[in-house]
Amino acid sequence: MASGGWRGRAAGIGAAVKLGSLRTGGRDGTLVVVSRDLRLAVAPLDLCPTLQHALDDWDAIAPRLAEVAAALEEGRGEDVFHLDAAELAAPLPRAYQWADGSAYLNHVELVRKARGVELPAELRTDPLLYQGGSDTMLGAHDPIECVDPAWGLDFEAEVVVVTDDVARGATPAAAGSRIRLIGLVNDVSLRNLIPAELAKGFGFFQSKPSSAFSPVFATLDELGEAWDGRRVHAPLVTHLNGALFGRPDAGADMDFDFPTLIAHAARTRRLGAGTILGSGTVSNRDRSRGSSCLAERRMLELLDRGAASTPFLAPGDVVRIEMLDHQGRSLFGAIEQRVVARAGGEAGEDG
Amino acid sequence: MASGGWRGRAAGIGAAVKLGSLRTGGRDGTLVVVSRDLRLAVAPLDLCPTLQHALDDWDAIAPRLAEVAAALEEGRGEDVFHLDAAELAAPLPRAYQWADGSAYLNHVELVRKARGVELPAELRTDPLLYQGGSDTMLGAHDPIECVDPAWGLDFEAEVVVVTDDVARGATPAAAGSRIRLIGLVNDVSLRNLIPAELAKGFGFFQSKPSSAFSPVFATLDELGEAWDGRRVHAPLVTHLNGALFGRPDAGADMDFDFPTLIAHAARTRRLGAGTILGSGTVSNRDRSRGSSCLAERRMLELLDRGAASTPFLAPGDVVRIEMLDHQGRSLFGAIEQRVVARAGGEAGEDG
Repeated sequence: MASGGWRGRAAGIGAAVKLGSLRTGGRDGTLVVVSRDLRLAVAPLDLCPTLQHALDDWDAIAPRLAEVAAALEEGRGEDVFHLDAAELAAPLPRAYQWADGSAYLNHVELVRKARGVELPAELRTDPLLYQGGSDTMLGAHDPIECVDPAWGLDFEAEVVVVTDDVARGATPAAAGSRIRLIGLVNDVSLRNLIPAELAKGFGFFQSKPSSAFSPVFATLDELGEAWDGRRVHAPLVTHLNGALFGRPDAGADMDFDFPTLIAHAARTRRLGAGTILGSGTVSNRDRSRGSSCLAERRMLELLDRGAASTPFLAPGDVVRIEMLDHQGRSLFGAIEQRVVARAGGEAGEDG
Repeated sequence: MASGGWRGRAAGIGAAVKLGSLRTGGRDGTLVVVSRDLRLAVAPLDLCPTLQHALDDWDAIAPRLAEVAAALEEGRGEDVFHLDAAELAAPLPRAYQWADGSAYLNHVELVRKARGVELPAELRTDPLLYQGGSDTMLGAHDPIECVDPAWGLDFEAEVVVVTDDVARGATPAAAGSRIRLIGLVNDVSLRNLIPAELAKGFGFFQSKPSSAFSPVFATLDELGEAWDGRRVHAPLVTHLNGALFGRPDAGADMDFDFPTLIAHAARTRRLGAGTILGSGTVSNRDRSRGSSCLAERRMLELLDRGAASTPFLAPGDVVRIEMLDHQGRSLFGAIEQRVVARAGGEAGEDG
């Protein structure tokens, strides 16, 4: 049962809910229940101040958020206001756990092939997962700072799930039953810092600056048949400067599903409520679907023509990442970020 | 000025403060101000419910915590109670950022030497730092679960600092001025999972289960001359099953100081208030000081006698980690953890 206790508990009141966080109200923002069309919102402050607070006590709070969402859809909402996506921070402006997988082996194979090496056999059974930093998340419309063009600024369009507490040693089935919300991430990456950093052996740190998240995260029920309990079956659409860059199906070619990734993360430690787990760059073997990051397109150029011609991001570029359901509705709202030049003297602020 | 605005602001009231968190009160515990002798405590709930809350608004709250601490020391405290260290969770039971360095190159050199390789020259100027998981921290007296003895369970005694917000691109001087608290960590490690995990190139994940922290974190002023603004000059004393295992000086042979490590972490992203940054395993070149983890002792045995004889941790073992000031007082209280066999059926809890 993909949605665990939720569907049963909330069945009578409808449990399709979109949740976001206003920038106002402190470091964790203010929880808002957002209408399915993303135009209206309600801040149920008396019920729950922040999204982390809701995740900390999900079984008790989620059904009441579902009631708020149902009232909003039916025009019965109180203190409803028109939502400007620019008012939204990341749904979790800061989180306790952000772990990002690399579940689409087509992407990993292309990286290796561009380096002239085969994919190690163990990576077909042992998923790649890195520990990300979660203290400073970007909102969907926050700019991406280009501090130094030589760092090779790139985007990575991915799907994320948010979990409740997950026990150490949880099976994939048990881990999957703890998934509470689904959303999107732009896992901003500094490609030219990665080789030297990974060569040191301790994984990514400077090469993975703050990631940006979709305006809202949605409950499993909001996805309907697009969520099969293991993968999200819908195209992840990326535009760069208004031009379609890729629209791979997130459910196709995902070699490690979310329950498997969560169980991998929980093998030696329990995971806390509010854990965000990413799919890794969505990538289909069908090249006509395009790519979800510049690095993959550059690898394809290298393999096809002997040289990469697509440049990394530069100030002025605009990246848009969105997922539409089969009726063409935006499931999580769009991540739409403009690249800006280095903000002057930020380092001085704390000096 | 190592302690930033704090010392000036609190000079008149004395700013030597020890802070911990009771297990009660929710996932983030309940903030307590602890007496310098670690025997008494006050929970200033009206002032500040949790340590993260204090770090989120440090300049406003710290001076008032200093007043509570001064009253406690002078016998003027209200609602004072006797503290049982077993009642304490980690000072930050969950954190938004836990980054751990490897600042004692003697330790790194020994690891490499045991593998028969030299230390790469760049590691003398570019610090090793890994992104840790921060969603489930252990209290100082929490047991360490030995899930599978084949995983090679080990401890690592380290010093940590806790920072305020740090701007992206902060200089070491600016980064150092953001240090607010100091404490200890036992960075629990699964040695036999590390080689395969690092070979995958994405860093540590399963090989670094939850870390345990000292009963309290202390303000810079609490350390007096032991804190020079860059390093902690005091022996870090580790006992294994009651026998002295090591007492290296944390200020000696620390090749990268804390301001340098923080600036390295903040090179491409800002750091949020409550960031915990670790020194890495404390290690002196003077072998008579002993070691701060089993792996280092095993490497010395391998180098000296051709084989490692010290086993990894097993159920029943007790690890004690403490730092004493020059008057022999425990600065942060002792981390004292017993290794227990796998807790039956934990994975079932969430099933």
